[in-house]
Amino acid sequence: LCGTFKRNMSGSKFEYVKKYELPDPLMLGTFIVFRLDGHSFHRFSDEHNFTKPNDKRALELMDHAAKALMEEYPDIILAFGESDEYSFLLRKSTSLYNRRQAKIVSTLTSLFTSNYVFHWPRYFPDTQLRYPPSFDGRIVLYPTEREIKDYFAWRQADTHINNLYNTTFWALVQQGGQTTTEAHATLRGTVSKDKNEILFSRFGINYNIIEPRYRKGSIFVRTEIPEELLSSQTQTQEEDSEKSPNLQLEEERRPELEESTGNSETTTKSSKKKKKKKKGKEPLTKLELLHRDIIKDDFWEEYPAILKE
Amino acid sequence: LCGTFKRNMSGSKFEYVKKYELPDPLMLGTFIVFRLDGHSFHRFSDEHNFTKPNDKRALELMDHAAKALMEEYPDIILAFGESDEYSFLLRKSTSLYNRRQAKIVSTLTSLFTSNYVFHWPRYFPDTQLRYPPSFDGRIVLYPTEREIKDYFAWRQADTHINNLYNTTFWALVQQGGQTTTEAHATLRGTVSKDKNEILFSRFGINYNIIEPRYRKGSIFVRTEIPEELLSSQTQTQEEDSEKSPNLQLEEERRPELEESTGNSETTTKSSKKKKKKKKGKEPLTKLELLHRDIIKDDFWEEYPAILKE
Amino acid sequence: LCGTFKRNMSGSKFEYVKKYELPDPLMLGTFIVFRLDGHSFHRFSDEHNFTKPNDKRALELMDHAAKALMEEYPDIILAFGESDEYSFLLRKSTSLYNRRQAKIVSTLTSLFTSNYVFHWPRYFPDTQLRYPPSFDGRIVLYPTEREIKDYFAWRQADTHINNLYNTTFWALVQQGGQTTTEAHATLRGTVSKDKNEILFSRFGINYNIIEPRYRKGSIFVRTEIPEELLSSQTQTQEEDSEKSPNLQLEEERRPELEESTGNSETTTKSSKKKKKKKKGKEPLTKLELLHRDIIKDDFWEEYPAILKE
Amino acid sequence: LCGTFKRNMSGSKFEYVKKYELPDPLMLGTFIVFRLDGHSFHRFSDEHNFTKPNDKRALELMDHAAKALMEEYPDIILAFGESDEYSFLLRKSTSLYNRRQAKIVSTLTSLFTSNYVFHWPRYFPDTQLRYPPSFDGRIVLYPTEREIKDYFAWRQADTHINNLYNTTFWALVQQGGQTTTEAHATLRGTVSKDKNEILFSRFGINYNIIEPRYRKGSIFVRTEIPEELLSSQTQTQEEDSEKSPNLQLEEERRPELEESTGNSETTTKSSKKKKKKKKGKEPLTKLELLHRDIIKDDFWEEYPAILKE
Repeated sequence: LCGTFKRNMSGSKFEYVKKYELPDPLMLGTFIVFRLDGHSFHRFSDEHNFTKPNDKRALELMDHAAKALMEEYPDIILAFGESDEYSFLLRKSTSLYNRRQAKIVSTLTSLFTSNYVFHWPRYFPDTQLRYPPSFDGRIVLYPTEREIKDYFAWRQADTHINNLYNTTFWALVQQGGQTTTEAHATLRGTVSKDKNEILFSRFGINYNIIEPRYRKGSIFVRTEIPEELLSSQTQTQEEDSEKSPNLQLEEERRPELEESTGNSETTTKSSKKKKKKKKGKEPLTKLELLHRDIIKDDFWEEYPAILKE
Repeated sequence: LCGTFKRNMSGSKFEYVKKYELPDPLMLGTFIVFRLDGHSFHRFSDEHNFTKPNDKRALELMDHAAKALMEEYPDIILAFGESDEYSFLLRKSTSLYNRRQAKIVSTLTSLFTSNYVFHWPRYFPDTQLRYPPSFDGRIVLYPTEREIKDYFAWRQADTHINNLYNTTFWALVQQGGQTTTEAHATLRGTVSKDKNEILFSRFGINYNIIEPRYRKGSIFVRTEIPEELLSSQTQTQEEDSEKSPNLQLEEERRPELEESTGNSETTTKSSKKKKKKKKGKEPLTKLELLHRDIIKDDFWEEYPAILKE
Repeated sequence: LCGTFKRNMSGSKFEYVKKYELPDPLMLGTFIVFRLDGHSFHRFSDEHNFTKPNDKRALELMDHAAKALMEEYPDIILAFGESDEYSFLLRKSTSLYNRRQAKIVSTLTSLFTSNYVFHWPRYFPDTQLRYPPSFDGRIVLYPTEREIKDYFAWRQADTHINNLYNTTFWALVQQGGQTTTEAHATLRGTVSKDKNEILFSRFGINYNIIEPRYRKGSIFVRTEIPEELLSSQTQTQEEDSEKSPNLQLEEERRPELEESTGNSETTTKSSKKKKKKKKGKEPLTKLELLHRDIIKDDFWEEYPAILKE
Repeated sequence: LCGTFKRNMSGSKFEYVKKYELPDPLMLGTFIVFRLDGHSFHRFSDEHNFTKPNDKRALELMDHAAKALMEEYPDIILAFGESDEYSFLLRKSTSLYNRRQAKIVSTLTSLFTSNYVFHWPRYFPDTQLRYPPSFDGRIVLYPTEREIKDYFAWRQADTHINNLYNTTFWALVQQGGQTTTEAHATLRGTVSKDKNEILFSRFGINYNIIEPRYRKGSIFVRTEIPEELLSSQTQTQEEDSEKSPNLQLEEERRPELEESTGNSETTTKSSKKKKKKKKGKEPLTKLELLHRDIIKDDFWEEYPAILKE
């Protein structure tokens, strides 16, 4: 396996078939959004007895895999996750894998999946993984900041709507004793206000103080570590924006790991990296995990670097 | 996670961003070849002390993941693996995921990766997986049988050339006491005959009786189970074409698993499946694992169904 | 205009915008079908008083433009025209413009249009062209001979159905004195047999002896001129397959004209051409104009070279 | 030809080939730039004795064809032409032909070509068109205003560099008596300043007062006609920005012509148009022909509407 000399040794007469591969570069100057979705996760969550309406272990495992992806790929500057999906924003000027679509989609989906399976036991110590889960991935390009803000607003609005429904639904079932059919019927035609009312009046649940993670999803944002802090900080920061944050910073990407991302096909990236290393210029970054509103402008004003080159 | 009601509930004003997604259907009437390659597997094999020149456990794990993919996707009718790569042929008329490129590439890469990590302990009981490995995937389309035969011939010719080089190289190093630099120098400019000669005269190795798996790679071929055999057969067949085969057949895809591949996006497939199920017509198939020549015509003559619709 | 030194002299800081252009190569090993359609030709035919149901002048002008395209592009080996549309088949192995889609589509559409306008006065000596007509073009790829045969059968079946309808419709209007509304009503729900019956019993028209051009469309097929004929033949052959053909052969593409198709972008083609010229091997070909059935196999058996490389 | 009932009547068994056509929508939210280039215009200009270094008749014919394109397609809001090429900018939100790439490229190239041939006699009353010229077309997408400004700056910088070279070259040949080989040699290694110096000192030519059309190319910009002017204005405005402009306005697109662009495939456009017509809201626009600098910001500040939706 992986002999030192695998590729490019054969010049057989069959090699012409290689030319059938078509180029698939992603348009320059656009933001690349990569989104993953769990494949048949309805069944997967049943088989592994996920807690309803939200299974914190499962969400944290998703977050872990997302963070691992961002650690491996410095060009991912923002991520948003909810349920069994995660979206990643690559910085506009990225030349990751020369912006080749299939290469990016497949590699990122693979590494996320790999991390999900690899770290499963850490989040589900008492639940054995019964079969290998999978995800699908896709890329959508957006030309401007406007669409990027709206993309992430779209996903977070989706989180809100789904979570409010699910929270009310499962309260009706688990606490209210309704069957799932009855619960659906109860909710038919209701608007947000109605669901809040049901939760509060029937079950004493104030939806607005439910864990922000469930209501807002998970946001990872990459920020530069100011040089003056570099010596002292070493952990990841998780900020619960509506409570008091407990800071953790983590230094990004140990050098010896970065070596491993070297790939003969990412010449642009590689050469750039090397140049930058020489100059010692690539800024160290940290990843913050947030559970806060990203629909309003505050978030984007607070992190202006996300939408820069 | 994965509330019962996730999708399509939100009709927010942000939803317009969804329209930016572009269609990526793969041309009809062509053969789809999907190939996976290990990402940075040189380092991965070092970190996990893979045996040189071939690590049987690693190859068998690759085979296991490939077989799992074929069990999940009945439209994959042929596969060929060597080293850290695997190629899969979908039947020409497949409508898997409506032939959407990113969906197929990402899902197949994900499931393969997931199986690789999931089944690692079975093949490496004494070697803990140190970090999550990943693969990249790509799709190449071919219009006719000619290119398909030549594609697989190309990969197997590659297997031969690489394995002969690596076998000789590691013999020089491990048994001949050369440094890797010296071994490369020894091999510079040699042709196949020279390497065979080195192996035989210096190390008493007859290359032609080395395990077929190493020399020929792994081939999975899907064949229909004749109805009269259906009651008795239950295992996978591994045929070592140059020795006596030990038959193992395996009934393909348990019905309850097939349910799980249902996906709202694969309408064509789903409806077809349902129709077929109704008629009870979808033939049961088995997967054979072979290590034999697929460059010459014999193979294709023996398995004519591969290149049919 | 067209100074001798136009391109590639400027290395301004704006040149980066050039990199946004995306590659669009057409898959190798497939047949390229290029189809043109008149843009708003309903109005165009009204404004220029085209004869109903068929205007021979207009059809012959279409044929002329199609032939001019084939004379300029030796890789077009077959064409089929009806009404305001024309389809062209490029030989499977063509490397015209390196198989770049937009380049092929735009250049071929342009040259056809140009010929249509340029040669208008020859076919409409008494009708001035009132405004510039236009066409749209598209490319569809087909993997095998089967689809190519069926593509052309599809177009010719379309010719038949439309022409039978139109012929009957205009007989009802022009000879039967019906209004167009009445004629449509008369034809509603009728099948071919009914229309043939109407034509024959009411108007004494035997549909089967109407000009083959109207019933079968126009086919241009490129064939090699056997070397022994090369000295004597010089004109185009128009074969009316159902009557006696009047032979006309035309020597294809004078050498000095071929020079002018040289294009810096078609390196493959150019270099090939040069090689071939050296060897003096590129066969001279002629274009035959036919109006015959191409749905049945006879046609393809008679011209087997069309579907070769 | 163009019977009233051409399409969609045939439901033959061959119709499946239609499904092989692939979608090619252009990404939403991006600016579409469409550029035409003369095909083999070096030879074309020789064969028709174009004046060197610039043939005003030929340039004006190009302008005429460009203007005709803009009159037919209201979504083209800016154009820039030089030599045998022309670039067109479609407004960002255009849904012309549902943004289908091949449809746009082919139709626009066709209509431009058609106009070029159709109007030839008006600009070359004494020179018969010897053969039908052709153009190729391509589309490049740009995400933001920045790239659009730079694209047009790139083309105009190209105009300057080429025209200065050609002007000096032909002065050396036509007035200086050099052979073309000598003239090239004279210019080898010269920069702009050197060429200006040669022109002035040897030939008394002040490059800066050469016709702006030659130095700056041709710009067509579409602007809205303020409602209060609508009654009185009827012509096109040609502004020579460096001299006094002589105003000519032209009312855009007569309604009855717009009907003719109706196309069953441009549903979005059509329906929009109809809606707009109902509201009587689509503003009348005029086309101005300019020969001025568009590299500096002044131009874009003067015409801010170009880069709006």
